This record gives sequence, C-alpha cells and structure tokens, in this order.
Amino acid sequence: MPVFLDTTSADFEAQFSALLGAKREDSPDVDDAVAAIIADVKARGDAAVIELTAKFDRLELTPETLAFTSDEIDAACAAVSREERAALELAAERIRAYHVRQMPENAQWTDPEGATLGWRWTPVSAAGLYVPGGLASYPSSVLMNAIPAQVAGVERLVICAPTPDGKSNPLVLMAARLSGVEKVYRIGGAQAIAAMAHGTETIAPVDKITGPGNAYVAAAKRRVFGKVGIDMIAGPSEILVIADRDNDPDWIAIDLLSQAEHDESAQALLLTDDAEFGRAVAAAVERRLETLERRAIAGASWRDFGAVITVRDLDEAACLSNRVAPEHLELCVADPDALARKITHAGAIFLGQWTPEAIGDYIGGPNHVLPTARSARFSSGLGVHDFIKRTTLAKMTPQALKAIGPAAERLAISESLEAHGLSIRTRLDRLNEDAP
Amino acid sequence: MPVFLDTTSADFEAQFSALLGAKREDSPDVDDAVAAIIADVKARGDAAVIELTAKFDRLELTPETLAFTSDEIDAACAAVSREERAALELAAERIRAYHVRQMPENAQWTDPEGATLGWRWTPVSAAGLYVPGGLASYPSSVLMNAIPAQVAGVERLVICAPTPDGKSNPLVLMAARLSGVEKVYRIGGAQAIAAMAHGTETIAPVDKITGPGNAYVAAAKRRVFGKVGIDMIAGPSEILVIADRDNDPDWIAIDLLSQAEHDESAQALLLTDDAEFGRAVAAAVERRLETLERRAIAGASWRDFGAVITVRDLDEAACLSNRVAPEHLELCVADPDALARKITHAGAIFLGQWTPEAIGDYIGGPNHVLPTARSARFSSGLGVHDFIKRTTLAKMTPQALKAIGPAAERLAISESLEAHGLSIRTRLDRLNEDAP
Repeated sequence: MPVFLDTTSADFEAQFSALLGAKREDSPDVDDAVAAIIADVKARGDAAVIELTAKFDRLELTPETLAFTSDEIDAACAAVSREERAALELAAERIRAYHVRQMPENAQWTDPEGATLGWRWTPVSAAGLYVPGGLASYPSSVLMNAIPAQVAGVERLVICAPTPDGKSNPLVLMAARLSGVEKVYRIGGAQAIAAMAHGTETIAPVDKITGPGNAYVAAAKRRVFGKVGIDMIAGPSEILVIADRDNDPDWIAIDLLSQAEHDESAQALLLTDDAEFGRAVAAAVERRLETLERRAIAGASWRDFGAVITVRDLDEAACLSNRVAPEHLELCVADPDALARKITHAGAIFLGQWTPEAIGDYIGGPNHVLPTARSARFSSGLGVHDFIKRTTLAKMTPQALKAIGPAAERLAISESLEAHGLSIRTRLDRLNEDAP
Repeated sequence: MPVFLDTTSADFEAQFSALLGAKREDSPDVDDAVAAIIADVKARGDAAVIELTAKFDRLELTPETLAFTSDEIDAACAAVSREERAALELAAERIRAYHVRQMPENAQWTDPEGATLGWRWTPVSAAGLYVPGGLASYPSSVLMNAIPAQVAGVERLVICAPTPDGKSNPLVLMAARLSGVEKVYRIGGAQAIAAMAHGTETIAPVDKITGPGNAYVAAAKRRVFGKVGIDMIAGPSEILVIADRDNDPDWIAIDLLSQAEHDESAQALLLTDDAEFGRAVAAAVERRLETLERRAIAGASWRDFGAVITVRDLDEAACLSNRVAPEHLELCVADPDALARKITHAGAIFLGQWTPEAIGDYIGGPNHVLPTARSARFSSGLGVHDFIKRTTLAKMTPQALKAIGPAAERLAISESLEAHGLSIRTRLDRLNEDAP
C-alpha cells in the first residue's frame, strides 16, 4: 500500500517533506569507468568503440558495419505492421505540428539613441540522439528527440542505439527514418557518447547530445558537457494527479499505474479533496495490479513511492503540487483551466479527465522528454530551444556612441579595465576632432 | 608576437586546427575539496559557512552579519560618485529595455481533432547570483545577471559576494540595489554555492544559480547541478575581429586588447583580407602594450593565444569564424549586416567600426555573459530564458481522444507499456458504451 496523508493532520508537514526529500534512485558510481572509456575512444577512435561493443554488447562490428545501411533500414521498415506504421506517422505529424510553433522569432530594432539592437536564432549544426537498447528502446523517444532537432533546422542528425547480441527494434529504425535521421550507429553506452562528442574516423562529432540512458550514459553526458551541449539528465518518471470525486476511480488508478509501470523508482501521487475517493482509487489500483503485465514493477513503485494525499481544497492541492514540481500533472477536476492557472512549476499539464497522461507520451504533440526530480522548478521539457541558440546583435552609429559611450567608459574605468575604456575613448576623440 | 597565418599557405589547415584545439586553461582539480565543503554546509549549515569564511576570506561573521544590512547598502550607495551612479543607472535601464523584449509569449490553440494544445512560461521562484570578489568583482556583471532575472519575474533574488578581509565594492552593492536584489551575503567560494543550493538556517535555498567564479565555484556549480539549475561554466574571454583595410589599425588593436586584458588565457584573433593591414594592427598592438595598465596580462594573452589570419576574402573569414564560434565577434567591414548573415555560430556580434565590443560589456543592452570555448556552437548568452521555464499544456475532448487515442494505444502496446494503453482504452470503451 502507498502512504496515505491528510493535510489536516498535525504531522502532515513533516510527512510531506519526507516524501519530497525521499531519494528514489541509487546511481552506481561509474564515473571512473566512464572516464577511462571516454579517454580510450578519444585516443583510439573506431578501434576502441568496436572493442567496447564486442565486450558489452557481444556484437562484432567493423568500421563499415558501425552504422545500419540504407538497405537494412528499408528491410526493418518493411517489417513494421501497417497499423504501427500509421500510428508512428500520425505521431510524427502531430509532434512536428506542435514543435513548428515553438520556433522563436528573430528581432531587430533601433532605439532612440540610434543603436540598432536585436538577436538571431540559429540551429546547432549537428545533433546526436542516444536511444537505449533492450526493453527501454522506445520508438516514441526517437520521434520526441529527433523531430524538434529537425524542426530547428539541424543539418546532421545521428542516432546511437546499442543492439545487444545484434538485436534491433524495427520501430526505432522506422521512427529514425520518419524524423530525418541521417545515420543510425549500432553502438551504446559511454563509448557511444564519447564517439559522438569527440568523433572517430567513421563517426563525425556532433555539437549537441540528447536522449535518455543508463548510469554509464548519464555519467558520460555529464563528462562531455562543455565540449558539446547536452539535454537534461533524466531521472525516474513521475505523475501527480489532482482529482475531485467526480471521476471514475479506475481511470485515475490506471493513470497512476501508467507511470508506475515505467520503473520501480517511478513515483505516482494522488491529491484529492475527498478522502473516500482517495481510498476508492487506491482500491482500484490494487485491482488493476492483479492482472497488469508489469505488475511487479508498477506494484513496487506504488508501494514504495506512491501516496494518496487528502487536501482541504483544490487551492491547497495546487500549492502542494507546486512544491513537488511534477514531471507530469493531470488535473481531473471540473474546471481544469482555472486550476492550471495556479500551477507555477510542472513539466506538462494534462487538462481534464479525457486527457490521460499517456496521450502525451505518444501523440498529443507536446514533448514527452520532461524535467524530473523536481527540476521543473528551473527547467523545461525538450523542444526546439534545445537545438537552437541565440546570437545577440548590436550596431552603434557615431551618434549612438556619443550618447552612451561615455557611461560605458566610466564603468570600464571603475572596473580598472583600461583597454575597454580606451576602445570607446579613441573613437569618441575622433568624433570630437571631426566636429566643426 | 602572436601567430601569423595565411589561408593560402599549405600548412594552414594544420595550423588553424592547432589554434582551435589549443588548451588555454589548466583548471586545478579541486573536486574533492569542493565535495567536502558542500557536504559540510549541507550538514552544519550556517556554522560551516561561517567557519569556511573565516578560513578562506579572513572574515569573522555571525548569522546576523552574513548579509549586508539595508543601512550598510545605503552607506555604500552614498559612497558612489554621481557620475558612476548615473552610468550604472543608464546601463541598468538599457539592459532592462533589451531583456524585456526577450520575454517569450504563451500559446494555446485548438487543432482540427479538437485537441487544445499549448505552453505557458513561468519564472523560477528564487535565483542566486554569484559575484566574485577581489579584482574580478564587476558591478556590470551584477546588472547582467540580476536584470534578466528581475525581468523574468523571479520573486526572490539574492547575491553571494565574498568580501576578503571584509573589503567590499560599493558599486556592486549599488548595482544590486538597482536590479531588485533582496539580500547580498558576504560569502564566497564553494560554500556560497552550497548554501544557495541546499539552504542554511539563515540562507533560504534558491532554484537557479548563475554567475562566474574561480575553479572552486565552477566545480561547486557542476556538483549542485540537478538539485538547482545553473548557467554555463564560463571560460576565459575571447574576441574575433573581422576587419578590412578601411579601418584604423589602432582601433582594431585596442579592441583586441580589450579582451586580452581580462586574463592571460583570453584569446584575441584578427581575420583580415589584407596582410599589410594585419601587420599594421599587430604593430599598433605592440605600441599600445607599451603603456597599457594591464600590459602584463594583455601582453601574455596576445603573445600566447593571439593570431592574425590573412584570408582570401570575407566569405572565407565568415567560414573560419564559424569554426571558432567566438564569444565576441566584431565585423569591421563595409557591409557588416551582409557579413553577419553568413555567421552561424557566435555569442554576440558587434556590427561596424563604431561598435567596439566594450560597448556591449556595459551599456549596449544585450547581455555580456556569453558562451566561451567554442560553446556558441550549441549555447546562448544569458537572458530571460535562463530564469523561466515552459510547461506544456494538452486538453483532449472525447472526440479528440477518439480520433487520436487508438494510435497512442497501438504505440503503447508496441512498447510493452500495457497500463499506458489501458489508460486510453478504458476511456475509449466508455465512449463506445455511451454511443447510441
């Protein structure tokens, strides 16, 4: 059973703080091993990548077989059923339509002093997406990572996806093709991250690396950060549902389980203003757990990290939710739009009982790569912004420099940066000489 | 003397690659020391911060004197000259006017299937700015960090600024007051970063930490990343100037020196299509170095990392500049706007000979916190985006779920995530039951 809390009980604050602070993940310390792998790939390139792949994935590769050929991808796509292909295509189309709207505008204007200012957005030149192998190899994640990059205008998009024992997922290859990926390398782990960051004879280096991965991949991403850009370091999934009594307890139960089934460290929380409804949902979860395929995982997550919290009213629910800053937030209440306006920190909001979180995992349009572990307090889900950057623009006229230059010179002198001041003074002196 | 290169020489590519790859900074490995400091502050709070400040900054504090009082800040502001105050105020006003324009729009729309989608931007609740002590204590950096946060709507803004031996910079306190900072703590180093990330009895934790610092500060920021957001890890400053012969060599020389004077590891590069002009600039640099206050620093930077590169034409200059991805880029050419359109990677562009880079350090309006060490390939300068985050919104109607739900269910089944599929199927079944 999960923990049951009530905001009116005397020890609520202590219990809630404990829930907020609970460490759900024990990351093994693989940093030294990862440092050695990165150094090896940097030094020996393809040879290191090939050896490490033989060792970890039991797969013998050559420089020629590092990447899937176009024929191999064709064959994989042909193996995808018509229904799956149609579903992937619809998902790709909807994700693209959403992300196209995210592209920000360039700007340029001239201010009263005559200074022309502005900025311009440009895409990163090359991006690499990591796609985990095995059970966590999700074609939907390929779309969610690659399409924003494609929309941003990234010229070269590659994937690293390990294929342990040579086994690959045709849907992953199909998703790669649907989203403009140029090459799919059958390598994984820290060696794949190192290859994308530093390049090898066969694999050209990229400028930005995104995508989830295990502890080795996460540690490697942290290490190459600075050499290349990275997205967030993702933690286990989370859902917080705020629901009033006018919901089917079974719907809410299955929504909670849809995150719990990801990972034993996932967290599913229910906030409700009706204690009886909360108990009904908990009972429904138990019923669903009897038959769910992934009941071992989902059950452990719900038992260890799940919670049902009874609140005084929905305003209090919004306050508590803001303290959690959940990755996914479902608002199953009569007026979800009004409640959403009180939410200050959340990765994604799902409004109303007809919007199960899973719709956002696949096909809603918004990205499913979202900030976990309370990082929605300060970060956003993946989007086109992750694949573009802003260059600021400034252009002075002689008159503009005359108007604002002396203040800049004054500040430069205050900071003891003489050459800064002189670069302005030299020009101002010329203007004074030229004046009649 | 700096290195002189010519793109027409046979070994240019090798020389340019060496220049690009040159390691300009040797960061001491302080990671273990920093880990210990962070653990100490986490465990003992104020007491640890106070002890470490006594040890490193030779300053005895109490919980009551950790922050400057309002009276102390008043007194500091009164010590600022009228000219300096006016210059700071003009800078603050112009930086604010620029950053207000950066605030992105929220969006919401309904698509043909009846799904309402969109996103909303919200500020982080609390931000902490690190302001280095000693020589590198720049009031302009306070404005450049704090004003974007203020414009973003951050509720609580604090500064940590070490005051070794109790010495503080009145201009820093004045800049803090001009930009809505609530508290200025006289602490620094890894202990200040730890206090802002984890909180102490006196110092409330923040959600985002920005600002430059030494190796300890940088290592501490890397370590607390995830618990809080951080901005970039800044490296030594860089300028690249593209100039044709129609410039005063002395102007270009002093512009190069204005970055070289920051740091012996700074880098100043000149690209010109006229070899003779390049030699004239180098000669002007030597003349300026004879008298410059910071000639030891600027001279070392120019000698060790400076370069004058003769190019065939300006297009080639743009290509090479894009490979450098410089922090600051000056375009001192007849048509700087046309050349700017060929630039794909740069932190900030300064257009035309009347726009010395230093104008952007203080008063142009754009931010002076910019990506260094070639990271303009994948990241942007500081701005309001660093203090806001995006929450995505999705709302389905029964009809929308009917239209797109089956495809999501199909993908969930393909990924073996049964509960994901059931959360959609359960609702679709209800719709089918309800149908006539």
